[in-house]
Amino acid sequence: MSISPFDHPFLSGLLGTQAATDWFSASVEIAAMLDFEAALAQAAAEEGVISSEAAGAIALACQSFEPDMAALEAASARDGVVVPELVRQLRATIAGEYRNALHFGATSQDVIDSSLMIRLKPVVAYLRNGLGDVIAGLDHLGTAFGPNNLMGHTRMQAAIPITVRDRIDAWRAPLLRDTLRLAFLMQSFPALQFGGAAGTLEKLGPKAGAVRRRLAIALDLHDEPQWHSQRDRIADFASFLSLVTGSLGKIGQDIALLAQSGDEISLSRGGGSSAMPHKQNPVQAELLVTLGRYNATQLSGMHQALVHEQERSGSAWTLEWLILPSMVTATATSLRTTTGLLASITGLGNANGAGKS
Amino acid sequence: MSISPFDHPFLSGLLGTQAATDWFSASVEIAAMLDFEAALAQAAAEEGVISSEAAGAIALACQSFEPDMAALEAASARDGVVVPELVRQLRATIAGEYRNALHFGATSQDVIDSSLMIRLKPVVAYLRNGLGDVIAGLDHLGTAFGPNNLMGHTRMQAAIPITVRDRIDAWRAPLLRDTLRLAFLMQSFPALQFGGAAGTLEKLGPKAGAVRRRLAIALDLHDEPQWHSQRDRIADFASFLSLVTGSLGKIGQDIALLAQSGDEISLSRGGGSSAMPHKQNPVQAELLVTLGRYNATQLSGMHQALVHEQERSGSAWTLEWLILPSMVTATATSLRTTTGLLASITGLGNANGAGKS
Amino acid sequence: MSISPFDHPFLSGLLGTQAATDWFSASVEIAAMLDFEAALAQAAAEEGVISSEAAGAIALACQSFEPDMAALEAASARDGVVVPELVRQLRATIAGEYRNALHFGATSQDVIDSSLMIRLKPVVAYLRNGLGDVIAGLDHLGTAFGPNNLMGHTRMQAAIPITVRDRIDAWRAPLLRDTLRLAFLMQSFPALQFGGAAGTLEKLGPKAGAVRRRLAIALDLHDEPQWHSQRDRIADFASFLSLVTGSLGKIGQDIALLAQSGDEISLSRGGGSSAMPHKQNPVQAELLVTLGRYNATQLSGMHQALVHEQERSGSAWTLEWLILPSMVTATATSLRTTTGLLASITGLGNANGAGKS
Amino acid sequence: MSISPFDHPFLSGLLGTQAATDWFSASVEIAAMLDFEAALAQAAAEEGVISSEAAGAIALACQSFEPDMAALEAASARDGVVVPELVRQLRATIAGEYRNALHFGATSQDVIDSSLMIRLKPVVAYLRNGLGDVIAGLDHLGTAFGPNNLMGHTRMQAAIPITVRDRIDAWRAPLLRDTLRLAFLMQSFPALQFGGAAGTLEKLGPKAGAVRRRLAIALDLHDEPQWHSQRDRIADFASFLSLVTGSLGKIGQDIALLAQSGDEISLSRGGGSSAMPHKQNPVQAELLVTLGRYNATQLSGMHQALVHEQERSGSAWTLEWLILPSMVTATATSLRTTTGLLASITGLGNANGAGKS
Repeated sequence: MSISPFDHPFLSGLLGTQAATDWFSASVEIAAMLDFEAALAQAAAEEGVISSEAAGAIALACQSFEPDMAALEAASARDGVVVPELVRQLRATIAGEYRNALHFGATSQDVIDSSLMIRLKPVVAYLRNGLGDVIAGLDHLGTAFGPNNLMGHTRMQAAIPITVRDRIDAWRAPLLRDTLRLAFLMQSFPALQFGGAAGTLEKLGPKAGAVRRRLAIALDLHDEPQWHSQRDRIADFASFLSLVTGSLGKIGQDIALLAQSGDEISLSRGGGSSAMPHKQNPVQAELLVTLGRYNATQLSGMHQALVHEQERSGSAWTLEWLILPSMVTATATSLRTTTGLLASITGLGNANGAGKS
Repeated sequence: MSISPFDHPFLSGLLGTQAATDWFSASVEIAAMLDFEAALAQAAAEEGVISSEAAGAIALACQSFEPDMAALEAASARDGVVVPELVRQLRATIAGEYRNALHFGATSQDVIDSSLMIRLKPVVAYLRNGLGDVIAGLDHLGTAFGPNNLMGHTRMQAAIPITVRDRIDAWRAPLLRDTLRLAFLMQSFPALQFGGAAGTLEKLGPKAGAVRRRLAIALDLHDEPQWHSQRDRIADFASFLSLVTGSLGKIGQDIALLAQSGDEISLSRGGGSSAMPHKQNPVQAELLVTLGRYNATQLSGMHQALVHEQERSGSAWTLEWLILPSMVTATATSLRTTTGLLASITGLGNANGAGKS
Repeated sequence: MSISPFDHPFLSGLLGTQAATDWFSASVEIAAMLDFEAALAQAAAEEGVISSEAAGAIALACQSFEPDMAALEAASARDGVVVPELVRQLRATIAGEYRNALHFGATSQDVIDSSLMIRLKPVVAYLRNGLGDVIAGLDHLGTAFGPNNLMGHTRMQAAIPITVRDRIDAWRAPLLRDTLRLAFLMQSFPALQFGGAAGTLEKLGPKAGAVRRRLAIALDLHDEPQWHSQRDRIADFASFLSLVTGSLGKIGQDIALLAQSGDEISLSRGGGSSAMPHKQNPVQAELLVTLGRYNATQLSGMHQALVHEQERSGSAWTLEWLILPSMVTATATSLRTTTGLLASITGLGNANGAGKS
Repeated sequence: MSISPFDHPFLSGLLGTQAATDWFSASVEIAAMLDFEAALAQAAAEEGVISSEAAGAIALACQSFEPDMAALEAASARDGVVVPELVRQLRATIAGEYRNALHFGATSQDVIDSSLMIRLKPVVAYLRNGLGDVIAGLDHLGTAFGPNNLMGHTRMQAAIPITVRDRIDAWRAPLLRDTLRLAFLMQSFPALQFGGAAGTLEKLGPKAGAVRRRLAIALDLHDEPQWHSQRDRIADFASFLSLVTGSLGKIGQDIALLAQSGDEISLSRGGGSSAMPHKQNPVQAELLVTLGRYNATQLSGMHQALVHEQERSGSAWTLEWLILPSMVTATATSLRTTTGLLASITGLGNANGAGKS
């Protein structure tokens, strides 16, 4: 329950984000998998692959399904994925004649990858909004303090005076580019994964394309050919996450350095110390550095997972499961923290002449 | 609650380990912090730094303490550490005259690092036992199948026949060395961290060394000079974890390759598929590769945290919090999984002559 | 001379690429820096910042400049960058009245980052062509063997038969997307870096924008506001490189696995063994895995360098120098190797019915 | 020739180390491979496996051998290793009757891994001496400035005053532990690799152990059972390298921060700027951070290579070649740079009372 500080009972105050807890809860995950199964049944029925009665029965079953979590856990250990047991449990709640219509043509990878994509939809919205909030916060700082002087520093040494606006521009420009990058990524992401046992949708025959198209529309995902062994979109998304946290980490490092020298920034609040009540620690600024370095570390693992052998690599796939939710959470936390940190700046630079070395 | 598969309601069946959930639960963490505070008070009393009445009151308070978790969470967000608020809450349960004796001479880093060290004691025992179990499993396989032939492979090509014992020796030797490495590490690990505000125990004056020594003995930790900004022992421990999971990952990769070619290994159980009931997937073997690559990824972050500036780096320290518990869990899971996987091997190599290409 | 296998006297046969040796030779690097200085002088002259005589003298000096390499080496050790000494040497070859016009308004970061950008232009062209060659190679395989059967494998186990075309599509689709990604990246990359001492072009006053624009045009780089402390474009480019090598690594892993099972692929050549002359090792296929994992490792460091403090971080910047050329080379080598590997495939899949498990 | 700054014509002044260039030159590498072959022949002759005349002919051939480098390069590309061609060239210089005695019982992995181990012997000596030099430099600083006051900083904020000695102790203690770690590692490292085609020394029969023992003694390497697919010792050595550079990186970060605030440290020299002649950049201090982060990045790749499948993994092995020499060089450079940086400190802390915030 607390192996990860991201959903730790008290460290999540610092490191977590409520939204992330929601995106990655087991219940939301199961709900997304049920959405996939119900939408697949509906799409298959519309194409005449299964009967509409079967689709109706499946929809009903999905609505009222109560998983046996202990059995899901045990089966995940055995099968490496939860889907076979989930489908078994779900099937047991469906009248015998419709059972085989459930999950027809699909396989575990379809359910799990598409469930992830469904859950990444609100993530993408959060990221877009979060970037917007940080940019707005920077704009606000620019308006308030832009013309002030700030000592420019190169190689950890005072160089020549710049303005607060110069520094803010350097913080802001990468985030504007991140907004463009996100828009580009979203041209084919999040994308439905639907390929069947080995990616060929062999059970659906000539209806395969039409079912997939309907399924994508129903789930509001991009309709793309199956991509299960092509992890480039996911690795690219992870790169995006690390770009964001890295650029926010630079902001954090700069603010921590400003706070150290002390007379060019005022923060309305800072962290307390158990030994030194007088201190005002730039906790949020340091945290941005932490999260930037965390995602830079994790990114390597996501790119290792690109070497996804054959039609499905259990080892490379599971590696993503261990890493991606934490990267998303780190990014959400970093955006939230930056917005708060920027709002806490009550003074930046010096109005009267040159900055301090 | 489910950002990390390590403590996920159903994925933990595959990826988690009950022991790890216990090591890193918030309640065990708080208990370890309280143990530190009570032991510190006792040590300080024995050295005459605080009164024995104060120590008694503190011990009593620690025994009956019920944290206000919501307040801990909010304060962690503000302070970057839980300790100031925890101490505040705990102090509020102590009679006024003894309150200042609590946490006397200590600071957040002492409580948190020492709490981690306390919790790593059972981890170390688990690792030692886990290595022993895997080695015993390999010895058992060696006894059962050692003389059998196995086709040796180099560069993914059949080379010349070897024996099962040759392969097992290659799996086993690194683990024997890991046992020696763990013994070497344990010569100064886990170690008490006790240094006060900036590492100098300035409040304890000439009693500093004696209090620290008593505290280390009481907590059954190595008595070492404060090391808060010296993270080499922790990074070295992380390296050890990755060495273990890497060597187990090699075992997993080898078994997965054996299972693919198919006629040199028999496994009593394998994972099921939702689309292909006939398959017996080598889920546990693949998982070992996953966990090896996971820890190899994480290790980089733990070594980045060696650049721990000045007397305490909030950013580098917090990075460790995000990574180390997951690395420990991955290692425990890998050991547990390997033991199970080895026990499931019902045949290895071919008794009658040359292996298969 | 041989610390890196990428430019090692004999290992470069395997791991290097002649083009990369050219991109990153010291002489090409100095030539690019001289191009920058000459173009800057010309642009400044056209805007009336320096005299056209000075620009002419500088152009001439750049053309005939012979660096004192030993002095450059010694100065790099002292200054952390080569530019102060390079400018000093160059200045010494210019008539006294024009000397101060050299490098006017610029600083080391301008010269070095822009020199890198100049040298990345042929890199980008190579990557574009290399992707095209690999895609063409895959198309050729598809034409030759597309309808053949291939056993699909999931979780290292035979699943159901697919066609060669299915597998080729899975190899090809990420590369098509990489082509789109590269086009997107190139919308603002490679970009001129020109900012002066702390990014403000303070010495050029109102002429700053116009000089920068002329300089960008002359160097055929995107005209962008100075971005020295904004490393997102470079980290994003590194992510792209790792996406390419990761997707090629998947191809390599698949081919190595095909070569191991043996009857679904024929390769016209393979590596020899010093002990087993009969073997045909899939050296090129394995190498693709190596290069994919190499870049996935390196990528982490490039993203760590996003935390580039203040106006110039000596430590983060230098970290890029240590990593990026190797990533570029690994990518070029991976593309070249894949093209050769694909061309060596003389058979893929089985024409007559089901593949082999 | 310049892809890696470690052996770059001018950047090596900053980033390289002459010793490293020597350790990893192709000629030294070939010499070590020839040493292996000659010593193997001698050991085999002493055990009666080959004739002493053959051993003599081989010794002579190794002494006068002139490699055809172009052929080695071409063959490395084909075979993935240089050894088959090297042995072929060498054999061509030996009288026909003795040719087959060359390389008898060995394979490429034996030659290459043992050649690496031979070349790591001076590396280990350099590391031991380098650690000693840095510790001596710290001791000297402690003697000169130990009692001075220094402002302790936690979380990038002034905390309470400490002494220079406190800070130096925090820098020094990890290096003392590194010295112990190196001694522990050296108990079985560098170790001879000798196993033949698939690790079983099958061609040497009952003489295998004795030949290996003689060979280890002759090459002054630990005599260990073949370990080619067990990369834990090498990964552990890499971890050690990263521990060293990480702890030196902390020293560098601290000195850069001291240099920024400015009045607690004096450095006798610093790097110059092309735009701001007044600056004294703490180039060496920043470089230590760079090298620490570099090795922390690389370490991940070395641990990925622990998943070394079967009897020899071409992909995992080659990954080490790409990384380890650079890690060694980074460590040598970091040690050298630290010694120089410490020697350049002409003042540390303040003699008269409290440090500065």
